[in-house]
Amino acid sequence: MFKKVLIANRGEIAVRIIRTCKELGIKTVAVYSTADRESLHVYLADEAVCIGGPQPSQSYLNIPAIIAAAELTGADAIHPGYGFLSENPGFAEICNACGVKFIGPSPETMLLMGDKAKAREIAKRAGVPVIEGSGVCRSVQEALKEAERIGYPLLVKAAHGGGGRGMRLISEPSEAETLIATAMSEAEAAFGSSEVYLERFIENPRHIEVQIVADRGGNVATFGERECSLQRRHQKVLEEAPSSFVDEELRKKLSEAAKRIAEYINYEGAGTVEFLVDKEKNFYFIEMNTRIQVEHPVTEMVTGKDLISLQIKAASGEKIDYNQVELKGHAIEFRINCEDYKKGFSPVPGKIEKLLIPGGFGVRVDTHIYEGYQVPVYYDSLLAKLIVWGESREEAIRRGRRALSEFVIEGSLKTTIPFHLKLIETEEFRKGNLNTRILEEVILPKIV
Amino acid sequence: MFKKVLIANRGEIAVRIIRTCKELGIKTVAVYSTADRESLHVYLADEAVCIGGPQPSQSYLNIPAIIAAAELTGADAIHPGYGFLSENPGFAEICNACGVKFIGPSPETMLLMGDKAKAREIAKRAGVPVIEGSGVCRSVQEALKEAERIGYPLLVKAAHGGGGRGMRLISEPSEAETLIATAMSEAEAAFGSSEVYLERFIENPRHIEVQIVADRGGNVATFGERECSLQRRHQKVLEEAPSSFVDEELRKKLSEAAKRIAEYINYEGAGTVEFLVDKEKNFYFIEMNTRIQVEHPVTEMVTGKDLISLQIKAASGEKIDYNQVELKGHAIEFRINCEDYKKGFSPVPGKIEKLLIPGGFGVRVDTHIYEGYQVPVYYDSLLAKLIVWGESREEAIRRGRRALSEFVIEGSLKTTIPFHLKLIETEEFRKGNLNTRILEEVILPKIV
Repeated sequence: MFKKVLIANRGEIAVRIIRTCKELGIKTVAVYSTADRESLHVYLADEAVCIGGPQPSQSYLNIPAIIAAAELTGADAIHPGYGFLSENPGFAEICNACGVKFIGPSPETMLLMGDKAKAREIAKRAGVPVIEGSGVCRSVQEALKEAERIGYPLLVKAAHGGGGRGMRLISEPSEAETLIATAMSEAEAAFGSSEVYLERFIENPRHIEVQIVADRGGNVATFGERECSLQRRHQKVLEEAPSSFVDEELRKKLSEAAKRIAEYINYEGAGTVEFLVDKEKNFYFIEMNTRIQVEHPVTEMVTGKDLISLQIKAASGEKIDYNQVELKGHAIEFRINCEDYKKGFSPVPGKIEKLLIPGGFGVRVDTHIYEGYQVPVYYDSLLAKLIVWGESREEAIRRGRRALSEFVIEGSLKTTIPFHLKLIETEEFRKGNLNTRILEEVILPKIV
Repeated sequence: MFKKVLIANRGEIAVRIIRTCKELGIKTVAVYSTADRESLHVYLADEAVCIGGPQPSQSYLNIPAIIAAAELTGADAIHPGYGFLSENPGFAEICNACGVKFIGPSPETMLLMGDKAKAREIAKRAGVPVIEGSGVCRSVQEALKEAERIGYPLLVKAAHGGGGRGMRLISEPSEAETLIATAMSEAEAAFGSSEVYLERFIENPRHIEVQIVADRGGNVATFGERECSLQRRHQKVLEEAPSSFVDEELRKKLSEAAKRIAEYINYEGAGTVEFLVDKEKNFYFIEMNTRIQVEHPVTEMVTGKDLISLQIKAASGEKIDYNQVELKGHAIEFRINCEDYKKGFSPVPGKIEKLLIPGGFGVRVDTHIYEGYQVPVYYDSLLAKLIVWGESREEAIRRGRRALSEFVIEGSLKTTIPFHLKLIETEEFRKGNLNTRILEEVILPKIV
């Protein structure tokens, strides 16, 4: 086992990792920017090294400074957390080259799964469904032929653009020719190229992901799924485990698919395999995250497994001697951000003058904030993760309502606590009737 | 279900009960003494009524004031918590007479089980072992005859006294006559009566208790046992669930014994049946607590059941449709008191200037304190309960160490956090080699 782990991150995830290291008897090194001198992760770690200025590029993305801190303190491993350098294969390579174990998969695996086209190819080869699509189409005729193969409904998208321009939804063959032509001329006008590609359209899919941890010997353990459909601008705002939409059969299929992909690439460490799931319970691989995720605690609450501990143990070469774990109850994570949800969720950091963190049965809070803490303006707006557990989803929601209403974060900042209190009262949420579009298209217009 | 519950208590247990009421959609009424105006339970409840002066007799034991508060606010039930009026049959009777449901068993049951001699008689009749003893003996001859029947080792105790005077441990028959005579003359000198009684001596027993909740229909559910052997002056300082000493067979026997007693007296509500358990795993009923206990959270952590919720539901007439629950993992509760453990655990209340409550995976804190809170001098010294859960006892201990070392309560007060940090490092605790005398006789001399 490692003797000393450097945590190349900040905020709640740095605190989270330090906690598990302490429980494992591993010494910890915090690194911090000049804006984070008063941060809780600095206080909790055994040692702390300032690695640069407030901008992420000066500190938490500053590879030479982080490596120097590891060498200075004699750390034998680096935990990257999420964000920052956690999915940077170059960083992983440098760590390993310097004799400091990067806690994550190999740089090669990170590179492979970081390329979405390659990851998709891997999934296909591993026998896991992906969303059917075409290559680049240069003419309407070519596109029509591909459309025939893929089936309807489908999306035609500009090959060299984004933001919805040059994109059309085609519901049936009769409208294909006209819409493809429109998309191509729009693409030409907007991006200087009329090239398009086609993708099978999944109507109102759910975003459901499977947590895995693989040991070095190739044993892949799965920990059930998370429901992450509630998103705003592709950012998750609330996550659940398990998904109320997933039955035992689908869980088995999703878990097996995740396992197949991990086995195919000899994956090592903690990872998440993400899927879109349609109404008929068909599922499609979208991508794999080769790191721990923000929402990992909901899985911990229903499995009783400390995923950071397993991740560190796997990195140190320990075996995982099981394949599947039992799920018990239901967990919900509320991301408490310093944002004004009434003003487009714009960040409103500030000083915390009064803080009351909820507690009691079935309530967990992962946070780096404390009374008197000044939230820096340089980083993401996550203040705390409130995770609640209940025997049923209904009980978890009731507990969430109670804990949210008990949570006091006062001062010159705004938080998304009032937003979550409204969100959980909506019919869509209560019924678990979720998809990746519902927050922005249906729920937000109602509650903002 | 009740519409509004008055909580006739203060501190962490009042906060605990309010939380579950909120989750059940029940309105809450806090009552408070003039010393508790700034208390968290007052802030969290929907309504709050001041019921008198700082002394318990003026407020939390002031039955007319509490009943008046219930009538004033239209509460339809009263939860007594633990301590104060929770085991007062007269209070329960008045509540019920005023049309306010007392959340607990009937006054008759409370009266019966509150009398230890009667409770012991009940246990015997229900076929549950009790510690063999004699009636009052007026002569050495009479005592010797009883001793023969009971067996050795045994204790001879003054019938009309206490505090160890007139008490002798008799290990074998040869020393009985002399020691009984000594005890009798000592009792005569100390208490004006030479009458003694005999009790089988259990060497270094464990204190192990079984949690039950019974519904009105007579179904008694058991929730496994708690290990409460670590005591100082008969006060528990740290509790665990399950007991590392109890195997499946003993658990089944203890649970069945607890159930038999509850069924014999038609028990209703939450209760705890306490046993002494000897090295050979023989167990003896000692008493029953007809209320929720301080240490109930360790049971909640290993069963996933909200005991306060079950207690309230049972009081409202809801059925409990199971008999036994599965246990998962291991939980430990540390009682964090404002005491100076180096000075005989003398209370040192004061103002909390800096507070950092531990969080993260497997950590629960039940408390009423906050930064800036002034701990009143009038009540017990419990500041917080830190409860940790782990997959194994070893993991729970590691998590406890981490959470204790993270816990900051600074100001003009002292806490037992440093005591617990030392306690968990002792060989006795680590090995789980516990009994009711070990803290005072072996552990405290080492660590204080």
